[in-house]
Amino acid sequence: MTQRVVILNGPNLNLLGVREPTIYGHQTLADIEADCRRFGEQRGLAIEFRQSNHEGQLIDWIQEARETAAAIVINPAGYTNTSIAILDALKMFEGPIVEVHLSNIHRREAFRHTSYISLAATGVICGLGARGYLLALDAIAGMLEGG
Amino acid sequence: MTQRVVILNGPNLNLLGVREPTIYGHQTLADIEADCRRFGEQRGLAIEFRQSNHEGQLIDWIQEARETAAAIVINPAGYTNTSIAILDALKMFEGPIVEVHLSNIHRREAFRHTSYISLAATGVICGLGARGYLLALDAIAGMLEGG
Amino acid sequence: MTQRVVILNGPNLNLLGVREPTIYGHQTLADIEADCRRFGEQRGLAIEFRQSNHEGQLIDWIQEARETAAAIVINPAGYTNTSIAILDALKMFEGPIVEVHLSNIHRREAFRHTSYISLAATGVICGLGARGYLLALDAIAGMLEGG
Amino acid sequence: MTQRVVILNGPNLNLLGVREPTIYGHQTLADIEADCRRFGEQRGLAIEFRQSNHEGQLIDWIQEARETAAAIVINPAGYTNTSIAILDALKMFEGPIVEVHLSNIHRREAFRHTSYISLAATGVICGLGARGYLLALDAIAGMLEGG
Amino acid sequence: MTQRVVILNGPNLNLLGVREPTIYGHQTLADIEADCRRFGEQRGLAIEFRQSNHEGQLIDWIQEARETAAAIVINPAGYTNTSIAILDALKMFEGPIVEVHLSNIHRREAFRHTSYISLAATGVICGLGARGYLLALDAIAGMLEGG
Amino acid sequence: MTQRVVILNGPNLNLLGVREPTIYGHQTLADIEADCRRFGEQRGLAIEFRQSNHEGQLIDWIQEARETAAAIVINPAGYTNTSIAILDALKMFEGPIVEVHLSNIHRREAFRHTSYISLAATGVICGLGARGYLLALDAIAGMLEGG
Amino acid sequence: MTQRVVILNGPNLNLLGVREPTIYGHQTLADIEADCRRFGEQRGLAIEFRQSNHEGQLIDWIQEARETAAAIVINPAGYTNTSIAILDALKMFEGPIVEVHLSNIHRREAFRHTSYISLAATGVICGLGARGYLLALDAIAGMLEGG
Amino acid sequence: MTQRVVILNGPNLNLLGVREPTIYGHQTLADIEADCRRFGEQRGLAIEFRQSNHEGQLIDWIQEARETAAAIVINPAGYTNTSIAILDALKMFEGPIVEVHLSNIHRREAFRHTSYISLAATGVICGLGARGYLLALDAIAGMLEGG
Amino acid sequence: MTQRVVILNGPNLNLLGVREPTIYGHQTLADIEADCRRFGEQRGLAIEFRQSNHEGQLIDWIQEARETAAAIVINPAGYTNTSIAILDALKMFEGPIVEVHLSNIHRREAFRHTSYISLAATGVICGLGARGYLLALDAIAGMLEGG
Amino acid sequence: MTQRVVILNGPNLNLLGVREPTIYGHQTLADIEADCRRFGEQRGLAIEFRQSNHEGQLIDWIQEARETAAAIVINPAGYTNTSIAILDALKMFEGPIVEVHLSNIHRREAFRHTSYISLAATGVICGLGARGYLLALDAIAGMLEGG
Amino acid sequence: MTQRVVILNGPNLNLLGVREPTIYGHQTLADIEADCRRFGEQRGLAIEFRQSNHEGQLIDWIQEARETAAAIVINPAGYTNTSIAILDALKMFEGPIVEVHLSNIHRREAFRHTSYISLAATGVICGLGARGYLLALDAIAGMLEGG
Amino acid sequence: MTQRVVILNGPNLNLLGVREPTIYGHQTLADIEADCRRFGEQRGLAIEFRQSNHEGQLIDWIQEARETAAAIVINPAGYTNTSIAILDALKMFEGPIVEVHLSNIHRREAFRHTSYISLAATGVICGLGARGYLLALDAIAGMLEGG
Repeated sequence: MTQRVVILNGPNLNLLGVREPTIYGHQTLADIEADCRRFGEQRGLAIEFRQSNHEGQLIDWIQEARETAAAIVINPAGYTNTSIAILDALKMFEGPIVEVHLSNIHRREAFRHTSYISLAATGVICGLGARGYLLALDAIAGMLEGG
Repeated sequence: MTQRVVILNGPNLNLLGVREPTIYGHQTLADIEADCRRFGEQRGLAIEFRQSNHEGQLIDWIQEARETAAAIVINPAGYTNTSIAILDALKMFEGPIVEVHLSNIHRREAFRHTSYISLAATGVICGLGARGYLLALDAIAGMLEGG
Repeated sequence: MTQRVVILNGPNLNLLGVREPTIYGHQTLADIEADCRRFGEQRGLAIEFRQSNHEGQLIDWIQEARETAAAIVINPAGYTNTSIAILDALKMFEGPIVEVHLSNIHRREAFRHTSYISLAATGVICGLGARGYLLALDAIAGMLEGG
Repeated sequence: MTQRVVILNGPNLNLLGVREPTIYGHQTLADIEADCRRFGEQRGLAIEFRQSNHEGQLIDWIQEARETAAAIVINPAGYTNTSIAILDALKMFEGPIVEVHLSNIHRREAFRHTSYISLAATGVICGLGARGYLLALDAIAGMLEGG
Repeated sequence: MTQRVVILNGPNLNLLGVREPTIYGHQTLADIEADCRRFGEQRGLAIEFRQSNHEGQLIDWIQEARETAAAIVINPAGYTNTSIAILDALKMFEGPIVEVHLSNIHRREAFRHTSYISLAATGVICGLGARGYLLALDAIAGMLEGG
Repeated sequence: MTQRVVILNGPNLNLLGVREPTIYGHQTLADIEADCRRFGEQRGLAIEFRQSNHEGQLIDWIQEARETAAAIVINPAGYTNTSIAILDALKMFEGPIVEVHLSNIHRREAFRHTSYISLAATGVICGLGARGYLLALDAIAGMLEGG
Repeated sequence: MTQRVVILNGPNLNLLGVREPTIYGHQTLADIEADCRRFGEQRGLAIEFRQSNHEGQLIDWIQEARETAAAIVINPAGYTNTSIAILDALKMFEGPIVEVHLSNIHRREAFRHTSYISLAATGVICGLGARGYLLALDAIAGMLEGG
Repeated sequence: MTQRVVILNGPNLNLLGVREPTIYGHQTLADIEADCRRFGEQRGLAIEFRQSNHEGQLIDWIQEARETAAAIVINPAGYTNTSIAILDALKMFEGPIVEVHLSNIHRREAFRHTSYISLAATGVICGLGARGYLLALDAIAGMLEGG
Repeated sequence: MTQRVVILNGPNLNLLGVREPTIYGHQTLADIEADCRRFGEQRGLAIEFRQSNHEGQLIDWIQEARETAAAIVINPAGYTNTSIAILDALKMFEGPIVEVHLSNIHRREAFRHTSYISLAATGVICGLGARGYLLALDAIAGMLEGG
Repeated sequence: MTQRVVILNGPNLNLLGVREPTIYGHQTLADIEADCRRFGEQRGLAIEFRQSNHEGQLIDWIQEARETAAAIVINPAGYTNTSIAILDALKMFEGPIVEVHLSNIHRREAFRHTSYISLAATGVICGLGARGYLLALDAIAGMLEGG
Repeated sequence: MTQRVVILNGPNLNLLGVREPTIYGHQTLADIEADCRRFGEQRGLAIEFRQSNHEGQLIDWIQEARETAAAIVINPAGYTNTSIAILDALKMFEGPIVEVHLSNIHRREAFRHTSYISLAATGVICGLGARGYLLALDAIAGMLEGG
Repeated sequence: MTQRVVILNGPNLNLLGVREPTIYGHQTLADIEADCRRFGEQRGLAIEFRQSNHEGQLIDWIQEARETAAAIVINPAGYTNTSIAILDALKMFEGPIVEVHLSNIHRREAFRHTSYISLAATGVICGLGARGYLLALDAIAGMLEGG
């Protein structure tokens, strides 16, 4: 049976492929969405793919996911290091949560090293670019299959 | 004469009774609202009860309260420790402000110990569960009566 | 059946109404005691009201309360931020404990922000003046009634 | 040829002239807007003047400015010290960015001293009141003229 | 053409399945090795799988990999947070490096949060259990294929 | 010839066997005293065994010990981490001093890790329960015998 | 007219001349008292000279001094760096307060460098040995004379 | 009536146009002086323009300005972050003080982020190059005109 | 029945009696081993006594002890404060672990105060010289006897 | 026989009586010099009284004092907290050194609390205004008389 | 008479000339060894030149040097900032010890700035490349000649 | 062809041989100068040897060296840890810079451990006494010869 996975993208990721390409690469968010949908079809996962610059919107979607989704993939971007409110929302979600970062945040400025989101995440993947989304879906597929 | 008190609830409090019940208890936000309204009636306070996951929305409501309300009760939840913007909004409000937390934040993670909101609040009540809202209203009633 | 509540006041509170009145107000400790007794009578609580400048004395009283009281209200004053020994004593007490501060300690010097006592308290009330004692008793009455 | 400059105002600046006048002065945001427009006309700059209490809204506007504007003036107010998301948005903007604060933030509370925004700004002006906006426009006019 | 990947396991991982199973699960290191070999065969990667409790041995192996391997997967375990010497060895390796942790190190003790290894790693995967090794190999396979 | 050893117990140790038994065990202070006396008789040490919740009282006893005792065993309990005054008293004592803690303080809250008392103690024993007192006496007996 | 000055000595000062003489010198507290009395007679000051190892006792005496004395000289010894309660007591005293330390505390261990007492003291004298008491009295005499 | 403004330049600014031109640009200090004089003439300000590598000399000039000048512009350069003595001198000056930095100090090394001078300055301008001096004069002209 | 206790000695302890004798005394490690064996015979403990300068070797031995020993005594010497890998090895050992230091590490350099090993140890003994080993064995004998 | 005492005054003290009079009082440096000379005459001390805004000049004078003076009184003002160079100069002086501050530096900004000078001073006097100079001379007179 | 000097090289130095050549240059460790031997012959020093990636091996060699060598040159590389065990080994060596770093460690990452080794070294040379070894030998030759 | 090297000595070095001889030795600055001149003659370096207690003077000399010298040796003494202004001056110098300290600053007080000067220096030599100057010249000679 198909299970739904919500993939949430935080602020400025809508401009992916534009923003600091030496750090984030040239792939756009639409490219990543397409890759995720393709991967989801192969693994029997229904993909819900969203982006917002608004912290509150991201929280609303996480709350909604409690009813509709089996797992969450989240790239919290600029809210990674500042949002206790998103952390709190994620702590209410019962399925697996994988936090993804395109770049290796540990090699960037010190204020990007400490993630509130990691305190609620099952696992974290960073530095592996857009591929990180697919690895996250792979891990989730495995977990949902009870592996 | 009836005076208006705005009770503002921050992110994720709409899921109260669901979220980490061992910490926050099983009472829902609607239950708390009902209790507050009942208490308000007894003490001659008109209760305005709101919740939002959006920091900006909470700020808008605080600004609005400058025109319409005599006092504010605020449970800033996940914005307690990160929102200087809410702090600044509250500093413009001239009536009494009581900050309420359901749990005793001092016994939780270190990042929950320092509240920006407390810098603008008249008083703070934490760890006394939903009862904390009524105690806050009681204090406000007393203050508005000039006591 | 009447239940006993011990209200403990820490160093220098005997001079209340005298000490820095712009911070603490003009009410004396005797005034507060009278208010508490009156409130206790209404709610069926026997009030034991004490003050000491001696950390050891406060510990002795807390230990004694284990045998004689159902709840503790404590305004630890100057020992709030320095006494692990009082914290340890309170941790042995099984009933509800409410920590009260007349002023909002979060708006004062940084060394007053971190309370050892809060690590053992059920709840904390600060910044609401002498009224804070009555709110604490109200909360305790509710808790003892099983509410 | 007229070039467009977006002037963004963060939370609570809509209440300027009201909020803590001893710190920020009695001029309203509408007064400042009028001054900026007048100055823009003299220097051949089309002024886009906006305010929001919502972090996400400010990010949306910064992203939009990538298409429509040659420069940004931003008074991030309460988001100055907490918003990595706004920082990230500004880093994608290629023209000059001037950060303005009405008050001298270095003489206020310690938590106001460190600005994330400054990490993306070309320059920073603080403590010079509403005049700071005009100085920022003056600097931008000079930079756009290639000076 | 088959490419060699060296998978290095740090101290105490030889006891996997034994050590703190509530944190690390019941799978043994031999189980993980078998999974990795199986995955390698599918993706055309020759797997070199090693474990040592000796920091110097791990460094020797990393140096050796410069001549013999196209990529490194490393679970540095207890040396994650203390070994600048391993960091320096990894910085001399030119192919992709993926750091893997079985548990989500960000939810454990504070001294486990800061990884020297991450400063040399291409990417980091944590909290996804033994599956993390396969995800790392998957990422490496993709990178070596030029994807 | 019999030598006198003073064993001093700090705040709340009078309630041993009651207080947080999962941390401190079920043995009472009287049990420990009896064990110490028995051990003292075997080794030719006269035991002086005392407890107080009062910091000043403990200091008085340490000063007194300068005249009457050859060694001190001290379990400073809640004053371990806060009393420079006890440290100063101990520094005036010329014989051996052994600091004892029932629990392993290094595995408890961070504020229990730094002992002022250790700066004056000859040695420290922690985490070995009531047995720690006897080990301390054993060490002292050895030292006094010139071993 | 003779004015009363209370000279308060904190813990372990009763053993002066004994304790670490390389730091504090060989003069006893009785010697200092005699010097102070002699000086007081010359300058028309009635000297009240006390010592206690008990923090609470020192607080009691400071409170008492509000009624009986024109000025306080205090050598808080081991309570210098730990007693907010003594600080609070001193803040209620309205006359001049001079804090005295026999040794130069800034050349000793780091934990002796920060004095709570200095936050309430008019002035501080340290490192000048027993002479510091007389200098303090000299300063007080001058202040009381209105100089 | 012409008012005098003293423009003070700290250490190494005499080599402007030479020193790290990628950070500070190719304009020399003489160029800036000429620009300032030209601007001063337009706005009716008499410009006193000075540079020294000596902290004491800068202090002497600030003291002198108390008698002779209506305002100060200061680029403290290397003394920005280390000179409490210059801060103290500026605090005695009663007119407006504008601190100028050519580069955006918040994007440079951490030790350049905290300015003692800002504690005495009316306002701060940084990151706008030599133009910053003229903006400072513009602000001062406005302030002196009472605007 | 005889039970085996492994006594592990960390780096540089092989030179005991040589190294900084004013801190560690003149007894050699062979002397301590002999004392331990003698004590073991009396108490029915088989002693395994080892020393290595190699962190990895110590880890190997701790792992080995899981199969062969009932308890561990460890003097981790220079690895006390730096080895998370040894901590992790010890956490897999199920019997009692006593950490021993010859000197009182709390009176030495600050970097010697925080022991990773203490996080896994049952108890810690320091500052009592070579006698500390025997006290550790005594404690272990008691624990193994179920006392 | 008359002994020479050098009294050194640091930056901005030449403006005493002018600078922040609510903190430092209305007495000028010339007034203090006159008081010191008068006191010196009474006690047989030749007074050398100097002031400079230049750190290097103060060092030169301290070096010179090695040949010509028996003691130093120094009010380092703004160099108190920043000058290791003055500290080093003072450490070469063999007679008594008394550091004087007019205000109680411990009640001012945090950066004024830590004095490098105190590390070389015999004693420190602060918060007692201009009287502090005379107390310093009094202490020095006593020390030179061998008291 | 020829005196022996042991030159010890820490982890990854065997790959010198390969590793990050922009930082460390293109010279190999064999080149440096040859230079050192040549220099040793000129100055009558027998050179023992070794490298290991193993902390324990380095300690073994330092201990061995106590019997066989008059001086040590050590480039501790990655163990510089983490090895208290090497520090302890060096403290037992009685001859001169010179610590050498090829690069200027103070201009690299913050975690490379604090060297445990420097606490035992006679002197430190850094940033002068391979030449630093010869300077170290030169210094040692001078010291051994009693200069 | 002879190349000029400027050797700059910071505050208090003029008193070398006098100041704390147990730390700095008995050699005077004139002795060192003579040694440097002799060494310079051998290696074809013209030596310019200077000392000042004035930070500004040292900066002036460094600026001057830009025109006249090929390299700088600097012993910044007490300005090592406090002078960003000297750091900035050195950053404008293009030839090699060697920082020299007579003592091993890493074994002294913590505030001497962090050198601003090292951020501009090519290399650093410390703890090797007066010989450090000659080693610095040797390194410079080598660098200037292109070695």
